[in-house]
Amino acid sequence: MTALPVKQRFNLPDGMIYLDGNSLGPLPRTVPDRLASMVGHEWGEHLIKGWNVDDWMAQPVAVADRIGRLIGAPEGTVVLGDTLSIKVHQALSAALAMRPGRRVILSDSGNFPTDLYMAEGLIRQLDKGHELRVVDPEAVAGAITEEVAAVMLTHVDYRTGRMHDMDAITRLAHEAGAVMIWDLAHSAGAVPVDVTACGAEFAVGCTYKYLNGGPGAPAFIQVHPDIVDDVEPALSGWLGHDAPFAFEPHYRPASGIERMRVGTPPIIQIAALDEALKVWDDIDINDVRAASIALCETFIAEVEARCPDLTLASPRDAAMRGSQVSFAFEHGYAAMQALIARNVIGDFRSPDIMRFGFTPLYIDEDDVRGAVDVLADVLDRSLWDDPAYRARGRVT
Amino acid sequence: MTALPVKQRFNLPDGMIYLDGNSLGPLPRTVPDRLASMVGHEWGEHLIKGWNVDDWMAQPVAVADRIGRLIGAPEGTVVLGDTLSIKVHQALSAALAMRPGRRVILSDSGNFPTDLYMAEGLIRQLDKGHELRVVDPEAVAGAITEEVAAVMLTHVDYRTGRMHDMDAITRLAHEAGAVMIWDLAHSAGAVPVDVTACGAEFAVGCTYKYLNGGPGAPAFIQVHPDIVDDVEPALSGWLGHDAPFAFEPHYRPASGIERMRVGTPPIIQIAALDEALKVWDDIDINDVRAASIALCETFIAEVEARCPDLTLASPRDAAMRGSQVSFAFEHGYAAMQALIARNVIGDFRSPDIMRFGFTPLYIDEDDVRGAVDVLADVLDRSLWDDPAYRARGRVT
Repeated sequence: MTALPVKQRFNLPDGMIYLDGNSLGPLPRTVPDRLASMVGHEWGEHLIKGWNVDDWMAQPVAVADRIGRLIGAPEGTVVLGDTLSIKVHQALSAALAMRPGRRVILSDSGNFPTDLYMAEGLIRQLDKGHELRVVDPEAVAGAITEEVAAVMLTHVDYRTGRMHDMDAITRLAHEAGAVMIWDLAHSAGAVPVDVTACGAEFAVGCTYKYLNGGPGAPAFIQVHPDIVDDVEPALSGWLGHDAPFAFEPHYRPASGIERMRVGTPPIIQIAALDEALKVWDDIDINDVRAASIALCETFIAEVEARCPDLTLASPRDAAMRGSQVSFAFEHGYAAMQALIARNVIGDFRSPDIMRFGFTPLYIDEDDVRGAVDVLADVLDRSLWDDPAYRARGRVT
Repeated sequence: MTALPVKQRFNLPDGMIYLDGNSLGPLPRTVPDRLASMVGHEWGEHLIKGWNVDDWMAQPVAVADRIGRLIGAPEGTVVLGDTLSIKVHQALSAALAMRPGRRVILSDSGNFPTDLYMAEGLIRQLDKGHELRVVDPEAVAGAITEEVAAVMLTHVDYRTGRMHDMDAITRLAHEAGAVMIWDLAHSAGAVPVDVTACGAEFAVGCTYKYLNGGPGAPAFIQVHPDIVDDVEPALSGWLGHDAPFAFEPHYRPASGIERMRVGTPPIIQIAALDEALKVWDDIDINDVRAASIALCETFIAEVEARCPDLTLASPRDAAMRGSQVSFAFEHGYAAMQALIARNVIGDFRSPDIMRFGFTPLYIDEDDVRGAVDVLADVLDRSLWDDPAYRARGRVT
């Protein structure tokens, strides 16, 4: 296993401290050559034959196996395609069909909005009186009752980094007879996950954050091997058919995870993602986790020592936290704009959250200290506490 | 307007006659540089800021306007994303919600299987007793009754090239109170289409065929401006929300076509497509149509003169035919393999269809005659009619 960081594997602009890999990962250095080859050689010279000679057709499962290794999924149980929103729809639609006598989808207020929106859309579409019950993250365990058809949660909260206990909640869901769906958007490549040990029916995620697949990289879905052949795909596209090129008049799902494919896969995006995932070939996710905790602890200690106006919005216990740290600050939007202007890149989430992602593949302790130096300087120079300045209204 | 062909705008391998642009268009020459710039400069240097400074967020509608101009859609009424299968689901789900008292989806046996499969999946998912009624293409007009909630057809048949009369069928659908959905997969960039004159509620299509967007390029959907704000999106993802970055707890659809967006758009694929669509900047689709008819007529005449074992499977009347010509032949699979081995690329569709696409952007009369020379030679050399050879079984 290689020691971290492996900064030389990424294109990191000079002088930039990039703490937003939890939103969009940076460009792995070998991706441009791979794309040039994929486009120039495969598409340009093989044209339609690329589907066979370059194995384009097999890639949604073959490339997904690289993600499977990071989340504890057996080979051939993960497939790439579409967006995370679509994968949520697929999982949730299948889950409700598996529990026809139940009407509650349980989620929490820490879930990313698109997961909740997709549930609302599905409920309207089905028009069978389902209810989306959204509770506080701390109240989830107590809300898992026998009314619940599906528990749908994001493992790591996009705003605060608060992390659910996947194994414990999945156990509670199963004890209550509910189906478990985990969204691993902020987990895959960030923290060790073992979907096999957890035993959830469905896991979904995206690949442009900690997996560095590039803007709009495809999503993934994993279905537990014990149930996948009983799943009736609602989005029954031709590439999930058992024999897509037989052009049969009726849909027959493929066996295994292939049935969760829908339409033609985004081959150019998949080539970029495949190349980006090679970064992980000699990396141990446990080393990433250990380094991430060290970086986050340093950041919290330094910010609390030097920036007293900021309030930690993430769990203080590292074991309860993903690979990001958030601070609440009344003028968080303006402060983040000032940071970005000085090339320290984090992001802001309404109403007052300053969010910093720590990605040990390319971030080290010097970056953390450098970021805090700029943050402290931005706050020192600011006039937010000057009544004359404040009277002029919100800093934008 | 520029005269056709514009072969120099494409990467066409030496010696290849490519008659499969109806399946996957060839690489436009400027796409590799555009991708290198998008990836190296936008993603590599701007990282997360690309969503703003490079206008990634606006591209699904901005780039789709280039397609809108080819299909007669007003500016800002088309959006890119997902796959054609997903766009079919969106259109059909919305159409059924618009006609809650009706239970029939009418389609025809010439529709591409994924459209039929997606309808089957939606019907199972809704579980309200809808029926997918599939009739012969010639029987569609007579089957549009007041039971029909939605008429869902592909304009140009993927196997035979037979073309429906969009205006006439849409009028019949509307007279019967049904919603009209057109799949333009084999039309956009191939034949003149005017969705505004036609007045259909929904049009969907793909961009990797005649629009040359590359393998897995995103699909598009157009919704008639008169109804789009009444459409309740079933796939209610965050990027179709009125204020995605407000992270509100409930879904509120954006106004206009933006509500048909779902998740994060595939920015790398969209960059390739945007560049590919620039090929059309100085091209008149009516010139493309005229040239396509001339090429198809030459091909039919030459094949019928020199290859008597082949039977025309496309309409003989050019006005009834898209931009492809198909011939039925008992040994079509083997004959197509032999053609491909000699660098004349068409494709085979079960059970016996040899399919040839004519794309006047890069195909000329010399290519057509060259292809027929090889086809005639392949057929002359074949032993299919030799009983001793046939006894050995199917040629593969």
